[in-house]
Amino acid sequence: MTKKEIPVKPYLYPMPVVLVGANVDGKPNFMPIAWTCIVEYSPPTILISASKTHHTSKGIRDNKTFSVNTPSEELVEATDYCGIVSGKEFDKSRIFNVFYGELKTAPMITEAPLNLECKVVQHHEYKSHEIFFGEIVHAHAEERFLKGEVPDIAKIKPFVFSMSDNNYWKLGGLLGKAWRIGRNYKKNKHVIS
Amino acid sequence: MTKKEIPVKPYLYPMPVVLVGANVDGKPNFMPIAWTCIVEYSPPTILISASKTHHTSKGIRDNKTFSVNTPSEELVEATDYCGIVSGKEFDKSRIFNVFYGELKTAPMITEAPLNLECKVVQHHEYKSHEIFFGEIVHAHAEERFLKGEVPDIAKIKPFVFSMSDNNYWKLGGLLGKAWRIGRNYKKNKHVIS
Repeated sequence: MTKKEIPVKPYLYPMPVVLVGANVDGKPNFMPIAWTCIVEYSPPTILISASKTHHTSKGIRDNKTFSVNTPSEELVEATDYCGIVSGKEFDKSRIFNVFYGELKTAPMITEAPLNLECKVVQHHEYKSHEIFFGEIVHAHAEERFLKGEVPDIAKIKPFVFSMSDNNYWKLGGLLGKAWRIGRNYKKNKHVIS
Repeated sequence: MTKKEIPVKPYLYPMPVVLVGANVDGKPNFMPIAWTCIVEYSPPTILISASKTHHTSKGIRDNKTFSVNTPSEELVEATDYCGIVSGKEFDKSRIFNVFYGELKTAPMITEAPLNLECKVVQHHEYKSHEIFFGEIVHAHAEERFLKGEVPDIAKIKPFVFSMSDNNYWKLGGLLGKAWRIGRNYKKNKHVIS
């Protein structure tokens, strides 16, 4: 195996795709975001990194709230459309049916299977991007996307994004159970006794 | 459509899986991490959120360096194994073949299709987790995982993780091109003229 050095870019494969919502000057606006991850389990906290120039970011700064909406495969066109047009020039409030929860200023997407209401608990400026830490204060979903009270990824059918080739991908089949499938490794390899 | 409120947990579907490497007391150690995302394009910067109790985190704090290794499907057992055992009790340095780059203290996994060398540029303590911002200073891959000089997700075959059910999933088929497929939405819906 010979490794070669390749030009340095931020490579992370693959990334989740969410629609982040905020009210900008009182009107709902949405942006697709793949630069997002969980940072804390309790209190449940998620972060997003977004260009400072995004229209939605202005709404997050103003209201200190945002929503995280997980789109299903069927919403891929509408999701991508939100990334093609800017709320500075187009009114995105009519693309989806919108509802609000307790936070009042975090517009959520009815058509998206899973909706999180977040209040900003930290805000970091970072070069051309800014990072919002959102504590999730409420979570909403339709019954048909749940297994018990938990969102079921197989029912939601979310999709992922690969950056360098700019593609969206479906999820494939189950590969294994975490904290379980690794036991096979131990059994088969006997690396560590 | 009726939404119901569900118990609040950090729901993000699905998340990438990487193996983060660091030297702990001079010995390579690895932990699987799904709480990771890109935060900046230039300089290319990635962050990870990891429990403060993780053995690997100690190495990152000590050396101010870490590696991000993208495993392929074939490495799922070894990856998961790294999450089952702790470097405090087991020597993980023999699970993979390890190589080093310019940073000297960021151990990389030869078997992983893509390896990033990162130096810590920011460090935030956050409740039970800590967040490391890593500027990617070098990237390594074998020729067979590249398309030109760019890592090819279809060749790498990375996998993703869903937290609430603790499952690893394969990637599925191509869903569409970003900043392209959204044009169909505009054409079909005429929501915005």
